[in-house]
Amino acid sequence: MFLTLKNNDRGDYIYQRIYMELKDHILNENLKAHEKLPSKRSLANQLNVSVNSVTNAYEQLIAEGYIYTKQRRGYYVENIMPFSSTKMPNDNELPTDLKETTNDREGWLSFSHMTADISKFPFDKWLQCQSEALKNHKKELSEIPHFQGPFLVRESIAKMITISRGIKCEPEQIVIGSGTQPLIHTLMETQDNETVAAMEDPGYSRIYTLLKNMGFDVRTLNIDEKGASIKGINSDINFLFITPSHQFPTGKIMPVSRRIELLNWSTEKPNRYIVEDDYDSEFKYETDSIPSLQSLDRNQRVIYTGTFSKTILPGLRVSYMVLPPKLLREYRNRNQHLIQSGNLLTLYTLHYFIERGEYTRHLKKMNLIYERKRRKVIDELVQTFGQDVEIENIPAGLHFLARIKTNLSYKQFEKRVDKEKLEVYSIRRFQLKKRNYKKDKIELVIGFANIKEEQISEAVYRLSKAFGESI
Amino acid sequence: MFLTLKNNDRGDYIYQRIYMELKDHILNENLKAHEKLPSKRSLANQLNVSVNSVTNAYEQLIAEGYIYTKQRRGYYVENIMPFSSTKMPNDNELPTDLKETTNDREGWLSFSHMTADISKFPFDKWLQCQSEALKNHKKELSEIPHFQGPFLVRESIAKMITISRGIKCEPEQIVIGSGTQPLIHTLMETQDNETVAAMEDPGYSRIYTLLKNMGFDVRTLNIDEKGASIKGINSDINFLFITPSHQFPTGKIMPVSRRIELLNWSTEKPNRYIVEDDYDSEFKYETDSIPSLQSLDRNQRVIYTGTFSKTILPGLRVSYMVLPPKLLREYRNRNQHLIQSGNLLTLYTLHYFIERGEYTRHLKKMNLIYERKRRKVIDELVQTFGQDVEIENIPAGLHFLARIKTNLSYKQFEKRVDKEKLEVYSIRRFQLKKRNYKKDKIELVIGFANIKEEQISEAVYRLSKAFGESI
Repeated sequence: MFLTLKNNDRGDYIYQRIYMELKDHILNENLKAHEKLPSKRSLANQLNVSVNSVTNAYEQLIAEGYIYTKQRRGYYVENIMPFSSTKMPNDNELPTDLKETTNDREGWLSFSHMTADISKFPFDKWLQCQSEALKNHKKELSEIPHFQGPFLVRESIAKMITISRGIKCEPEQIVIGSGTQPLIHTLMETQDNETVAAMEDPGYSRIYTLLKNMGFDVRTLNIDEKGASIKGINSDINFLFITPSHQFPTGKIMPVSRRIELLNWSTEKPNRYIVEDDYDSEFKYETDSIPSLQSLDRNQRVIYTGTFSKTILPGLRVSYMVLPPKLLREYRNRNQHLIQSGNLLTLYTLHYFIERGEYTRHLKKMNLIYERKRRKVIDELVQTFGQDVEIENIPAGLHFLARIKTNLSYKQFEKRVDKEKLEVYSIRRFQLKKRNYKKDKIELVIGFANIKEEQISEAVYRLSKAFGESI
Repeated sequence: MFLTLKNNDRGDYIYQRIYMELKDHILNENLKAHEKLPSKRSLANQLNVSVNSVTNAYEQLIAEGYIYTKQRRGYYVENIMPFSSTKMPNDNELPTDLKETTNDREGWLSFSHMTADISKFPFDKWLQCQSEALKNHKKELSEIPHFQGPFLVRESIAKMITISRGIKCEPEQIVIGSGTQPLIHTLMETQDNETVAAMEDPGYSRIYTLLKNMGFDVRTLNIDEKGASIKGINSDINFLFITPSHQFPTGKIMPVSRRIELLNWSTEKPNRYIVEDDYDSEFKYETDSIPSLQSLDRNQRVIYTGTFSKTILPGLRVSYMVLPPKLLREYRNRNQHLIQSGNLLTLYTLHYFIERGEYTRHLKKMNLIYERKRRKVIDELVQTFGQDVEIENIPAGLHFLARIKTNLSYKQFEKRVDKEKLEVYSIRRFQLKKRNYKKDKIELVIGFANIKEEQISEAVYRLSKAFGESI
């Protein structure tokens, strides 16, 4: 017979080897359609294996449709269409342009705005809350939750932002998601192509790209001393995306007069909305936090979005938005079929973390730590660069703007700072529309969240080396 | 003076009460623009409070833009635009149609296909892996990962599906996401409106709605004895969505001849793709699992998607897709700006759970448990309904089809089974195009994952009561 039962070194069982060889013979057409196979017993004798092994092999081949059986008449080869392609399966290498290079950042220091200091996060408390969640929500964890997220969790978020941000909302208005991006994405899908969006420039380029990719017309808003300005904007804009608590990335805090101006704008026409991205309002130093724009809204025109990624872990991926009733209705009609994308165990853990006061305690602690880091970075910059540095010293958030005098171009600077093993982003990354840069200075967005206090001097030193004598 | 410092029972500090009252006076225009405020000392004297309290109140008002200061000349009220709306903030109740009713399902039993049995999940091992993740990945957890997910995790997934599903792919080709829906969503955004999709009918209606919502032309494919049939489909279709391992919801396993037929179809024109949704292939009874369609693909036309939600927790929200190089390139070009939406701690935990063999062990155990439940449900159905039930007894997955003879309409049945406190879904839920139902039977999708063995008799009894004498 034709089977060799060669040992292929993979530790396969006998039945798997029989199965593999028969399958190959069928695909190679050594065995033709409707050809009769030997009976189980005769093949077992021939190969000197147990009948069981042959039975298992035949069963597997039947399950996959390579052979069929006629009752009491035996086993036959299926009529299988040949492959039209002569290539072999998966014999194509991954093209080199798609290979990822491992980015060894050993020894680097970072002024990135995208990080958080998790060294002080009370993982022990978090794990206690996780146990509580596991204990109390076994049933809920084995099912698919409400598509906006579990009611219980929305309830604690609603309560919390009422206290901390002055937001009045019902749990029904909250939609939890695995990030601000996907939330904005599904929200904006409720809008037709008449919608014209506007974003702060410089601003959050990830949302800008998202909206552009979705096909929206996206205009830009200039930033003046009060933050986003709507002076001279076209009247066809109806969706504003702003960061009034701490403009991203300039750090400007929008004063109440501008807030009222924007709210008044929103009521001038139906279907005008303002998305308030409150991405890092939890961090406010020197004074209390500034009440949200939503808390001043009298006409349900503000969509409020917040996140736990900045305050707990960047990779936590829990964000939420608060929808005004009219938008909520449209959102529900359209998105009922979506499965809640937040990790359910994380969400219930978060619920207990909030309810037990751990979240508030953690924020209080982090405010002190971050403010100390912020001051230290500013002090070091001033000491090092003296008259050549201009700092937007706004006591909020996890980053600030610094302008440094130099003859370097942005490109030159970026190359040099890379060589110094310092991660820092310039304003170029956040500028939505291409523009000409001032020739004599470089504007940097300095994030201070994830640098250790004792590394700040070294990081600023590296920065000064990158600027070198060009200052 | 005008301040009363009334105690508002909220335990506010003195400075907060001063701040609140001054703010109200400014917004009510009791204090006019550019009016001078009393000096800190004089206001403190007047209210009989410390100067510190007044300082804090003034600082907060400055931060929010209600007042301003001129050096050495004192504090002045800002010129604030009045609200154009006379409504008060957030005084609108949530409309009743948006209220959520709490759905008390106490005492219910469930044949839902959307659940999993998590009572046997080794949470202790999972938590050990979580500790390992926390210990080894502090740095990664404080940063934003690669937008496709951490390389390390993609590597273990790639290794795993190579062994279990015969898939050959590089970690580069894997995109992790918080569910199959969002992955399909971002994938399909790379396609223009020339793309015509086709889905199995009955099929996974959530994806159907998703694609329709995205504006795609979505056709339907009939299911014959071999699963999805492309006989007579229009040649303009270029994106097939299928579930060859275990057709959802009919359970049909696609034999190799049909698989090759589909793969041959995919190569007939450029830009033809097949999305293989392998949503529950981990559960295969009696024989080994069936190799994936992707493993037979010779021309990089199959997009493979898998999930951990069925095997670990429905609310885990970790899915992945394997993209052929050409689509990967398009995907990367378009979606670089997206932040990875999977929970990072969960992803690293999963990595160790896979690497230590816990995942495979868990699957092995669950296969035994689910197969026992499946057989028991089938036995009970046959015992109870006898000749009146017809079961698609396909040894795979977490649900099967049962057809029960009855005079009831689907609507009547659904009402009655609700009254019996039994959650079970009929085929209506999965039929993408409206059609006429056979009058004399009702087709049910019976999920057996999350019913306890000792409750199976009772659940089948409730089902029989719902059918009552109409059988």
